Amino acid sequence: MYNSSNIIDYVIEAWEKLQQQTPLVQCITNSVAANYAANVLLAAGASPAMIDNPFEAEAFTKISGALSINLGTPTTEQMQAIRISAKTAHENRIPWVLDPVGYGAVLKWRSDTVDELLQYHPSVIRGNASEISALAGSLSQSKGVDSTLKSDDMFQLAQGLLSKASCIAISGETDYILSTAMTCIVKIRGGSHLQPKITATGCALGALIAAYCAVAPIHLATIAAHVHFAIAGKLAYDQAQTVGSFNTMFMDYIHMMDANLIEQYACIELISDD
Amino acid sequence: MYNSSNIIDYVIEAWEKLQQQTPLVQCITNSVAANYAANVLLAAGASPAMIDNPFEAEAFTKISGALSINLGTPTTEQMQAIRISAKTAHENRIPWVLDPVGYGAVLKWRSDTVDELLQYHPSVIRGNASEISALAGSLSQSKGVDSTLKSDDMFQLAQGLLSKASCIAISGETDYILSTAMTCIVKIRGGSHLQPKITATGCALGALIAAYCAVAPIHLATIAAHVHFAIAGKLAYDQAQTVGSFNTMFMDYIHMMDANLIEQYACIELISDD
Amino acid sequence: MYNSSNIIDYVIEAWEKLQQQTPLVQCITNSVAANYAANVLLAAGASPAMIDNPFEAEAFTKISGALSINLGTPTTEQMQAIRISAKTAHENRIPWVLDPVGYGAVLKWRSDTVDELLQYHPSVIRGNASEISALAGSLSQSKGVDSTLKSDDMFQLAQGLLSKASCIAISGETDYILSTAMTCIVKIRGGSHLQPKITATGCALGALIAAYCAVAPIHLATIAAHVHFAIAGKLAYDQAQTVGSFNTMFMDYIHMMDANLIEQYACIELISDD
Repeated sequence: MYNSSNIIDYVIEAWEKLQQQTPLVQCITNSVAANYAANVLLAAGASPAMIDNPFEAEAFTKISGALSINLGTPTTEQMQAIRISAKTAHENRIPWVLDPVGYGAVLKWRSDTVDELLQYHPSVIRGNASEISALAGSLSQSKGVDSTLKSDDMFQLAQGLLSKASCIAISGETDYILSTAMTCIVKIRGGSHLQPKITATGCALGALIAAYCAVAPIHLATIAAHVHFAIAGKLAYDQAQTVGSFNTMFMDYIHMMDANLIEQYACIELISDD
Repeated sequence: MYNSSNIIDYVIEAWEKLQQQTPLVQCITNSVAANYAANVLLAAGASPAMIDNPFEAEAFTKISGALSINLGTPTTEQMQAIRISAKTAHENRIPWVLDPVGYGAVLKWRSDTVDELLQYHPSVIRGNASEISALAGSLSQSKGVDSTLKSDDMFQLAQGLLSKASCIAISGETDYILSTAMTCIVKIRGGSHLQPKITATGCALGALIAAYCAVAPIHLATIAAHVHFAIAGKLAYDQAQTVGSFNTMFMDYIHMMDANLIEQYACIELISDD
Repeated sequence: MYNSSNIIDYVIEAWEKLQQQTPLVQCITNSVAANYAANVLLAAGASPAMIDNPFEAEAFTKISGALSINLGTPTTEQMQAIRISAKTAHENRIPWVLDPVGYGAVLKWRSDTVDELLQYHPSVIRGNASEISALAGSLSQSKGVDSTLKSDDMFQLAQGLLSKASCIAISGETDYILSTAMTCIVKIRGGSHLQPKITATGCALGALIAAYCAVAPIHLATIAAHVHFAIAGKLAYDQAQTVGSFNTMFMDYIHMMDANLIEQYACIELISDD
């Protein structure tokens, strides 16, 4: 059984394995996030590679430790690569993360593709409350690609999605993580209200989840990535309250993370899902 | 009638509306600017979304508060999205900004597309002196995508373009703004000589103009965006004289802008266009 | 004959010419590197333009001072542009740099294209030890796009590649440069162990080599770019030991480079290639 104390030990263990193994993580991501997500992965200890063409997708997914798929600004060739890589990951039991950016009625092309991708059973689906609730079939007032719903109000909706993925992560002021491997819902606090003011932080978090999935069980990997992010965001904000400086410090703390900081600052709560 | 004092009041009003409304701004932009422009818009108070595929362009433009089109590194799919979104914006009276990066004889593909896009009457055309003068049909010694002409020497050329767009903005050491809604030309100073040393600042300015257009009349929106940029550039340079640090501070000041800073530092001059 | 003293004079001369001439450099690069490489070139003194579509490639290469081709995240349209621009550069004696990111058995599409591009005789081929040794026909344990081989152990392999290009540059903890114009191998030290923790630094170095090639002989240009990078990395690390802050300072020092810093910090060794 998990409790907030042994969960922290598992997070530390996952972080240590990430440092030791520096797993290769394939990221198919958007034009806004490409540089940022790669830098977050490098700073965190992983080895990112943004291979997103259909001609090399299968071969590269096969040698990757994990795969991150993000639908922020898809192109036709990326969509082809996404299908190939998701299928390859599924068939080769390589963990993969699906970030359905902007999922909803307006952005039909990507939403239809996301629906189709569910057949390859993503290890983790992560998104904001609007995206997750839309994907869960619920009505959502999505405004573009940013969330207007409180994750507090609707995390239950995500339970239904656990038939499609092993783990669901909803990010917001507070993050919620649900998994088929846990009877509880994990609530993670921390971070900074400045994070939504910096583009691609959610996309980078999706890539970081994938990195942890290469070295730890899916649910613990998802928790570890959120904790890593939340602590870096909290410590960066302690030192810098404006977006440019905060962003520099945030990358610094992603890199400076260690067992002591996790021990000291992780803010994890386990709540019953009844 | 406008004067340099009431213009500042209108700029402050536009800035306040931007904070209150956080408008959704669709940006079809280049691979260099995507992350930077999104971060500038978030820092300034808007909600950017880089939807640039032809399959979602129409639906997304319809729900956007404004549209920014930038031709820095076009792809065939982006070109399709650009045509669809410009047409949709025009038909739905959604303001849109055209940034004809590199317009001229050498870069024929984009230049032909720009010519074609003029049928959808952009709200604002913004560019450097070379681009604007080339688009105005004049001879220009354009060197790649950077300007080699002084905007001081040729802003009159832009007058002719006012039949194609409601507002023309020429950026350089001093920025000039012409509009069908004003009998004067607005001259904005400030910024820093380091800005041309940082890529995509012009592209981000185009996106910021679009953001302001979602909340204020076209000409005042264009002025407000330039003033916002110029003040942030000036204040950043006061604190950091090297490109990396300047860029961090610049983003900080885009975010920290407020009525007092605008009141204190706006450097606007109204000149007769005779 | 070159020695470590007169080589530094040539590097200073190349840097001065870069400042005077601000050459136009066409970069066809990946989605991760586009913004970063453009900022490095601007900070260093060049004028970058990321023209990467097949419709404008020929015309733009013809007016460029140099061309940089990087195969990090190719698209079909970029691949077409790459072929056209490499051919155009070759026919018009415009120097061009080839960065075969991820070259090896796994990433076949790009590797086949690289093989084909060798017919246009790149001025410089630059990469990490894995890429260069794979391209040299040797067996390499390439792990994704990062190097797992020590450049110390295999620089001799690169000699064979000098039939395909005028200059070969292998980057790593220590950089090695081989050229048909020199009987020695040039070894450059400096930089920081944080550089591999920041994405696209190698890609930006490739673009900087191209910028120097527009103003100086190929081998001296390649040496100058590596020295410029290594000094900026060393001085940045003296001031900042975490990735976010280091990266900001690195850009600062790329920009603040001058003859005195080169004189004082260049760490060049000439070794016999026997």
